Amino acid sequence: MKLAGKVLVAQGGGPTAVINQSLVGAVLESRKFPQITQVYGAINGVNGIINENFIDLTQETTHNLEQIAVTPSSALGSTRDKPDEAYCLEIFRMMQAHEIRYFFYIGGNDSADTVRIVNAYAEKSDYEFRAIHIPKTIDNDLLVNDHTPGYGSAAKFVAQAFTGVDLDNRALPGVYIGVVMGRDAGFLTAASSLAKKYHDDGPHLIYLPERKFSLDSFLSDVKNTLSQYGRCVAAVSEGISDHEGTPIATKVMNTIEKDAHGNVSLSGGGLGDLLARYVKEQLEAGRVRSDTFGYLQRSFPLAVSSVDQSEAREVGEKAAQFAIWYDADGSVTIHRSGDYSVDYQLTTLEKVARHTKHMPDHFINQEGNHVTDAFKNYARPLVGSLPYVARLRAPVVEKKLT
Amino acid sequence: MKLAGKVLVAQGGGPTAVINQSLVGAVLESRKFPQITQVYGAINGVNGIINENFIDLTQETTHNLEQIAVTPSSALGSTRDKPDEAYCLEIFRMMQAHEIRYFFYIGGNDSADTVRIVNAYAEKSDYEFRAIHIPKTIDNDLLVNDHTPGYGSAAKFVAQAFTGVDLDNRALPGVYIGVVMGRDAGFLTAASSLAKKYHDDGPHLIYLPERKFSLDSFLSDVKNTLSQYGRCVAAVSEGISDHEGTPIATKVMNTIEKDAHGNVSLSGGGLGDLLARYVKEQLEAGRVRSDTFGYLQRSFPLAVSSVDQSEAREVGEKAAQFAIWYDADGSVTIHRSGDYSVDYQLTTLEKVARHTKHMPDHFINQEGNHVTDAFKNYARPLVGSLPYVARLRAPVVEKKLT
Repeated sequence: MKLAGKVLVAQGGGPTAVINQSLVGAVLESRKFPQITQVYGAINGVNGIINENFIDLTQETTHNLEQIAVTPSSALGSTRDKPDEAYCLEIFRMMQAHEIRYFFYIGGNDSADTVRIVNAYAEKSDYEFRAIHIPKTIDNDLLVNDHTPGYGSAAKFVAQAFTGVDLDNRALPGVYIGVVMGRDAGFLTAASSLAKKYHDDGPHLIYLPERKFSLDSFLSDVKNTLSQYGRCVAAVSEGISDHEGTPIATKVMNTIEKDAHGNVSLSGGGLGDLLARYVKEQLEAGRVRSDTFGYLQRSFPLAVSSVDQSEAREVGEKAAQFAIWYDADGSVTIHRSGDYSVDYQLTTLEKVARHTKHMPDHFINQEGNHVTDAFKNYARPLVGSLPYVARLRAPVVEKKLT
Repeated sequence: MKLAGKVLVAQGGGPTAVINQSLVGAVLESRKFPQITQVYGAINGVNGIINENFIDLTQETTHNLEQIAVTPSSALGSTRDKPDEAYCLEIFRMMQAHEIRYFFYIGGNDSADTVRIVNAYAEKSDYEFRAIHIPKTIDNDLLVNDHTPGYGSAAKFVAQAFTGVDLDNRALPGVYIGVVMGRDAGFLTAASSLAKKYHDDGPHLIYLPERKFSLDSFLSDVKNTLSQYGRCVAAVSEGISDHEGTPIATKVMNTIEKDAHGNVSLSGGGLGDLLARYVKEQLEAGRVRSDTFGYLQRSFPLAVSSVDQSEAREVGEKAAQFAIWYDADGSVTIHRSGDYSVDYQLTTLEKVARHTKHMPDHFINQEGNHVTDAFKNYARPLVGSLPYVARLRAPVVEKKLT
């Protein structure tokens, strides 16, 4: 017998440029099934569920939903709440009160864990219930998945940003340090490598959280690059830490601020400014600049990867299909099935919840200061086309006076 | 009699997303005239002239020049050298040695001044010589001009960035401060206003260098915005200063670094971090974040305004036409001739050199914390189309438990 009732969709964690594609995919696919009585959206993720802040997406127009799909950030709003057992019980109580039978939560590994706990309550209570986690994170750090929706577009922003700043640095040479998001996983920082076209293009150096960061090695890398190219562009992950595991960023923060997940906040210009000051003092380099790309990375409207957009849409649709056609619970996962194509599978929530995936060793070079071609082959199809850049190739004029 | 000889083109100051359009416009137009024997490019602006680093752009392909035109940053390289009289005399000696009869320098008001001085040496020496300044600056601060090439594209980046971060802030409410380039003129920061679509969209507050900045007023503005919208997005110019004229940025910099123009360097996260910390402490606001947009603003490949591209191309072409057809010296200036259309004129170098244009009073609101509709009408055609963003409008579901 088909399970009749309502669908509830919510968005959690940090927004991305394509998370609304997943929302719209799940909503439109759910609306096709006659046993689905209504499709609700929770305002501000799980926080909206426990506060009963729902909107009825069955009454939203298809046209507006398609416009929402191409709008960056989370249209339902998001939350940094990390539910404990009591919080999840509250979520479950709300589900029962509203006769919600299908729950689709779009988010990272914390969101997968929430889905897992809520689903466990439903099973214990013999309440017929289907719960699916829909993957999303610009960090690309979910296990089982080849990659995650949101990553390709953020990576495209980072690659384009480095294309631009490298051309800028070529025109006005010096040292440039760009700090990229990614607390534990270096995938996003690694995407800066796609900005390299000519052999002497930047980023010349790439530092990832997967390798211990030493200020001495960094300094000698910068020095070598300067002597080779007369300039140096470095991509640095905000999450780099020293041999003791202490984030380099925390060394310069006056106030260590922790978010609800117990994570130290790494936003702000601290790390980049520290590294720039250090290089300037130690190398007596003239022009040293740093930028922290910050929130622009995850919501810039025009940096969207079309592959990422399509896949974000499909994981939303697949969630509805797995739950409503197949009566299944789990996390939708993306698997590379060709060069380039993907398949979607349903994986148990336990395998995705809470864990973090890191850059594999063969994506990082021996010296730990750049990526390999294997990484570029991996990332290129996810990011898609990048802007063409050209160089003058005119012959040099003979000198007359000097 | 037609003045026969070589053309020399150079690019100065900070790169922009469209400065190569001006280069290519000047080169291709110059190559049409039979009296032009060769078209040289100076590597790294005036620094390349005194060091005799020239390339022969007559031998560059038209195809590659067209690819260069759509590549951001200065393809010839740039310089921060600010020539004094002796330096300009050296420039002039090089012009004579290479029989350069036409000099086109693409840059801001400092570059215009260099052209003025070099031209004065030529006049004094009875050396037949035409010198044209081609306008360029993302700051939009050149006198006589309605606006300057480079501004529209940087403004488009800023508007899009605020569209994105405002959607992000709407999903995860708090206070967000975005620091925008612009030492003395607020035009670029003001462009953030184009990100507003709905009445409660950010930026809710905009602070420009044209108005004295007070931390107290800022705090009370943020407080009011928070109580009205539950969140606050502010756009702040890097150049804001207090009632004594002291840049707010310098108050937090450990090292005050001055560039070759005697300007204090305002790059780095200092100002944004200071303001964020201040708001956090004073208002006990939960989530306070800041980003300094930095170098991304002037070289991001995909944020280009098509109007800006066309005009940057045309000022380059007009420079060649004014000099070669009309035997004239001066600065090419842009004048708005319709809504929206422009004309190009030649203005004396003295009127553009060294001076800085500011935001006029009627572009700034009474409170000094936002812009007027007059500014938006001014800026919109320069920036061109911006991404469409949508909001969910589904009805709210009645609560059952709370």
